[in-house]
Amino acid sequence: MLRFGVIGCGYISHVHVNDIVNNLHGAKVTAIYDINKSAAEQMIDEFDLGIEPSKSIDELINSSEVDSVLVFSKNDTHTEPILKALAIDKPVFTEKPLATTTEEAKQIVDAEVKKGKRMIQVGYMRRYDPYYQELKQTIDNGEIGTPLMGYCRHFAPAPTTNDFQTSDVINDSFVHEISVVSWLFNDDYKSVQVQYARPNSTNTAAGLKEPQVATLKLKNGAIVNTYLDINSHYGYEVKCQVIGETGIAELPDMPSTRVHKDEKIYNSVPLESGGRFEKAFQLEFQDFIDHVSTGKEPTGPSAWTGYTVTFTANKALESLKNGQIVDLEFGQKPDLYK
Amino acid sequence: MLRFGVIGCGYISHVHVNDIVNNLHGAKVTAIYDINKSAAEQMIDEFDLGIEPSKSIDELINSSEVDSVLVFSKNDTHTEPILKALAIDKPVFTEKPLATTTEEAKQIVDAEVKKGKRMIQVGYMRRYDPYYQELKQTIDNGEIGTPLMGYCRHFAPAPTTNDFQTSDVINDSFVHEISVVSWLFNDDYKSVQVQYARPNSTNTAAGLKEPQVATLKLKNGAIVNTYLDINSHYGYEVKCQVIGETGIAELPDMPSTRVHKDEKIYNSVPLESGGRFEKAFQLEFQDFIDHVSTGKEPTGPSAWTGYTVTFTANKALESLKNGQIVDLEFGQKPDLYK
Amino acid sequence: MLRFGVIGCGYISHVHVNDIVNNLHGAKVTAIYDINKSAAEQMIDEFDLGIEPSKSIDELINSSEVDSVLVFSKNDTHTEPILKALAIDKPVFTEKPLATTTEEAKQIVDAEVKKGKRMIQVGYMRRYDPYYQELKQTIDNGEIGTPLMGYCRHFAPAPTTNDFQTSDVINDSFVHEISVVSWLFNDDYKSVQVQYARPNSTNTAAGLKEPQVATLKLKNGAIVNTYLDINSHYGYEVKCQVIGETGIAELPDMPSTRVHKDEKIYNSVPLESGGRFEKAFQLEFQDFIDHVSTGKEPTGPSAWTGYTVTFTANKALESLKNGQIVDLEFGQKPDLYK
Amino acid sequence: MLRFGVIGCGYISHVHVNDIVNNLHGAKVTAIYDINKSAAEQMIDEFDLGIEPSKSIDELINSSEVDSVLVFSKNDTHTEPILKALAIDKPVFTEKPLATTTEEAKQIVDAEVKKGKRMIQVGYMRRYDPYYQELKQTIDNGEIGTPLMGYCRHFAPAPTTNDFQTSDVINDSFVHEISVVSWLFNDDYKSVQVQYARPNSTNTAAGLKEPQVATLKLKNGAIVNTYLDINSHYGYEVKCQVIGETGIAELPDMPSTRVHKDEKIYNSVPLESGGRFEKAFQLEFQDFIDHVSTGKEPTGPSAWTGYTVTFTANKALESLKNGQIVDLEFGQKPDLYK
Repeated sequence: MLRFGVIGCGYISHVHVNDIVNNLHGAKVTAIYDINKSAAEQMIDEFDLGIEPSKSIDELINSSEVDSVLVFSKNDTHTEPILKALAIDKPVFTEKPLATTTEEAKQIVDAEVKKGKRMIQVGYMRRYDPYYQELKQTIDNGEIGTPLMGYCRHFAPAPTTNDFQTSDVINDSFVHEISVVSWLFNDDYKSVQVQYARPNSTNTAAGLKEPQVATLKLKNGAIVNTYLDINSHYGYEVKCQVIGETGIAELPDMPSTRVHKDEKIYNSVPLESGGRFEKAFQLEFQDFIDHVSTGKEPTGPSAWTGYTVTFTANKALESLKNGQIVDLEFGQKPDLYK
Repeated sequence: MLRFGVIGCGYISHVHVNDIVNNLHGAKVTAIYDINKSAAEQMIDEFDLGIEPSKSIDELINSSEVDSVLVFSKNDTHTEPILKALAIDKPVFTEKPLATTTEEAKQIVDAEVKKGKRMIQVGYMRRYDPYYQELKQTIDNGEIGTPLMGYCRHFAPAPTTNDFQTSDVINDSFVHEISVVSWLFNDDYKSVQVQYARPNSTNTAAGLKEPQVATLKLKNGAIVNTYLDINSHYGYEVKCQVIGETGIAELPDMPSTRVHKDEKIYNSVPLESGGRFEKAFQLEFQDFIDHVSTGKEPTGPSAWTGYTVTFTANKALESLKNGQIVDLEFGQKPDLYK
Repeated sequence: MLRFGVIGCGYISHVHVNDIVNNLHGAKVTAIYDINKSAAEQMIDEFDLGIEPSKSIDELINSSEVDSVLVFSKNDTHTEPILKALAIDKPVFTEKPLATTTEEAKQIVDAEVKKGKRMIQVGYMRRYDPYYQELKQTIDNGEIGTPLMGYCRHFAPAPTTNDFQTSDVINDSFVHEISVVSWLFNDDYKSVQVQYARPNSTNTAAGLKEPQVATLKLKNGAIVNTYLDINSHYGYEVKCQVIGETGIAELPDMPSTRVHKDEKIYNSVPLESGGRFEKAFQLEFQDFIDHVSTGKEPTGPSAWTGYTVTFTANKALESLKNGQIVDLEFGQKPDLYK
Repeated sequence: MLRFGVIGCGYISHVHVNDIVNNLHGAKVTAIYDINKSAAEQMIDEFDLGIEPSKSIDELINSSEVDSVLVFSKNDTHTEPILKALAIDKPVFTEKPLATTTEEAKQIVDAEVKKGKRMIQVGYMRRYDPYYQELKQTIDNGEIGTPLMGYCRHFAPAPTTNDFQTSDVINDSFVHEISVVSWLFNDDYKSVQVQYARPNSTNTAAGLKEPQVATLKLKNGAIVNTYLDINSHYGYEVKCQVIGETGIAELPDMPSTRVHKDEKIYNSVPLESGGRFEKAFQLEFQDFIDHVSTGKEPTGPSAWTGYTVTFTANKALESLKNGQIVDLEFGQKPDLYK
């Protein structure tokens, strides 16, 4: 039974801890820390964990009750606990991003490379989604030939808060496409470009300018456009279409009751994103548990993936300023990640 | 240029005459008769035909200006003009039904058989519909193996008038399925059965009881259910699904703009039936013109088809009284129709 | 932590025990019995349960380590353990059927009614399937008006063994439709009828005659046809379409990668039935655990449901002999099940 | 009866003349000229026109038997006959392009403006396609709000000849998107950009480099990407998706028999482009006939549309050289075209 120490008790932490307790197997939560102690207490209570909150991140990481560390704290606080856990050989699952700055992300990669084994998995869960998995398999089976172009759509019905920023579109939404496109196309990125389309006049978040068209080019020449719209109104929808030499493969529409009514044939699109990747969250975590609990290196999205996504997202933000193409030079990929 | 004499100037007559004048080639209208003279005058005027209304059906049929007779008058008035045209060797296109009674229909078949050549085409246009054509081709190509079962749906949004009768469901709607199912399944009917389902409480036509489930069995054992609903509310829709030994083939949904809106992905279903078989009406008539104008026998739905459909529809009405299965014995099919 | 005693270690037992151990929460397996002791040992080993096989059904049921009994043994062996568990107030989850004979099923119902509380859940899992759930919700929300007619399709690619019998089509396949149609239509059955369609010439199981068209009529007049085909060749597919007064609602096609290739746009249909109801199996069992572990009566498919399904299935087999309609008189439904 | 003089007897001329003779009404062909006299004779023969080929373009245009001129000759020979017909007040329908050079196209616009009335229609038929019409109506009805982004796909299975050039992708395929996008978005173009995606290794035409991603930006900020692939292998397909502030509207897949077979649910995609716009060709021509035969100015794609499409296509070819964005300055749109 793998023993997790959990850092951070926000929304995504609840999702994962709930899965660990109720839907997965082979692991349990033995330590919890949150900068706000009552949040940790509340979670302990909710899941009836029968433990005391850890007094510090260090205490949690170093606890003899903790085999592996889960980093679910705020985006810009991941680096320190990751590096500390690494230092004492405890595997880490961190929610995205690996780090918010390219430098810190690189620092983590370097530390892991120095260890000489993969110990970190980053929570880019889409690769575990059964529909993305099947899409990937279809491509890798050669059913559509070599992939040449792609078209993605990542739409949410409305900003979750009025504080929603343009940069959140990149850091919360687009990073997911960054995390899967190179995987689907089996190649590295060459450049990124993000342009504003015609502004959405219904947008109510002052700091948000959208929709956006983001273009990823791969080293092999493939071009993939992602349309990002946080004000779709109609619903939450994630689409991905890969065009190969001999065919096209794309994610299906999510299934729902098909209705004939009022001069229409329709099926529903949810407003909430919650359910779409529920299974992916479970599969990524069970996979992490299965590897780590048996002494294997995790094979999910690696620190290198985390680094390249952060790198690309930061360059995407740079591109947004003037809409120009920004080249991506990640540096040499260490052998550890090949 | 084939010269048509037109009997009857109602709705379907307008559809056909408009096609002859505007959308088809090789034929023109040279005589028109309607029991209501002003209806004939109005049609002559509308299509700028430059002719006088015929004074009688006999005058029209016998006119030296008429090569072929089109029978578009009321359902129970088809027999006389068909037999008279046949008598002087003028090919006939008649709207469905061939005749309203089984006896009259048989009388027409006998007269044609005596002539020794096919001179009559009955307006069961669905066989000319491109989608039914493709369905038929798919079956005949063996793509789904031998057909074993079928499921049809024939839905209209609401009765066209408050006088709409239960028998109209059979005579106006179900006859179309009768006309295509044996053709699709390449076999003759063995029995028909029509049962009322749970009554539709929204129905406003006093003489109408529906919906109904009509079951056709073929001599080879195949079973085909047709669901008939004149109060669908949502729209006009015709579906046909054929289940074969190795697969299923079915009519596609009619295409329309695909919309993502209001938590739905939808496409439209029309309330009107008008557009659905527009192309079929044109193709059936052009085919009749092409055959008759070159001295060939028409190959569309024959008098025999007309007879078997009327026969079956009348037995279906008999079945409706108690929901029992009624066997169908059409008698020996004459060689002319094999 | 609810403690289960498991009777029977076949395929479906593995599905449930695996879920209990790995994917659900709140329960564990503390006793196992199989008539073949090595099957029990193997399962204990596979799931690392650290227990000894029970020596008899009685020992298992009476064990102080067992709070609730799971009956997964052969179809005709369910009655005895169910009644014995009931006698000592231990809740039971039994796989379908409740019993193979109408008499035994009724005996169980009577025993439960005498207890005065619901203690039995029968494994008709489709009601827990998210797609059926959404279909039911759509109907109950009034989105399609009162349901009037239905059309179901239950197709498997090929018989699982050469011993597959015609009666297995009813007992293995059709029972699932029996278990959901009355639930979806909110009414009881009035009659059942099963007819053979044109025989499938590709069938290789000597004792199997198919496909079949099964017709359920409800007391309110609704008619529901189910097409049963164990030799579909193309795949495993379960469809259900409910036609209401103002619209139609139906199960969606199961989602899979959409591919454009070789002059086709397609998505895949699995040959295996395994994955289709995976989630339903988990939800039904978690629901049973959640109720029983907190002292509540289970609210899933009841003994009464189990009795009516067995009753209807047996009458369906009677109908198969000559294709006639067989009326269904279940007797008075006890208050316990209202 | 409008009398047409036809210049050029190639493939598209046959399509139009066949329609005029067989499927449309209100017009006939009274003069034909082709630089290759036998081509004209052959067409006269095929359609049984009973006329002699014209001896020159001038003779045809000036003939008292000709009311209107149809220009179907080679792409770079349209300007002269258009200007000559205009000079003597005879309306012209010209196949695309209006002219191959921006200068000649502008010269024709200037000549028409000088006339002070619209006399020219250019054969960009997509605006008459019922599916594009419905898409346009959906947008103009406000059903998806203001259009912000678009995604088009224009795929053919293989180059029609080994001589197929990269520039043909722009001039034969992309011009159609150019002709509809500004119409759908109700705005003028700001820039065009065409980039090569990863090269298709299956391509066999030496002068062809593809696929390409073409980006049109509109003055209002909307961005529309068109993916162009002449080696799709799987079939001929034209897609157009318009993303508005509150929803998405897109062309439907073309309907065809839906088949369940071999572990797939599929419908067919044609290899041939022929049928896709058959109805559009008829509707554009009937519309031209209806306007011109009653003395009205044609309202289909105008000379100005023809000029802007040629302008944009030529800039697209310029962009192809280095993939850069090219601004589009059409000059002031004359009042005649507002």
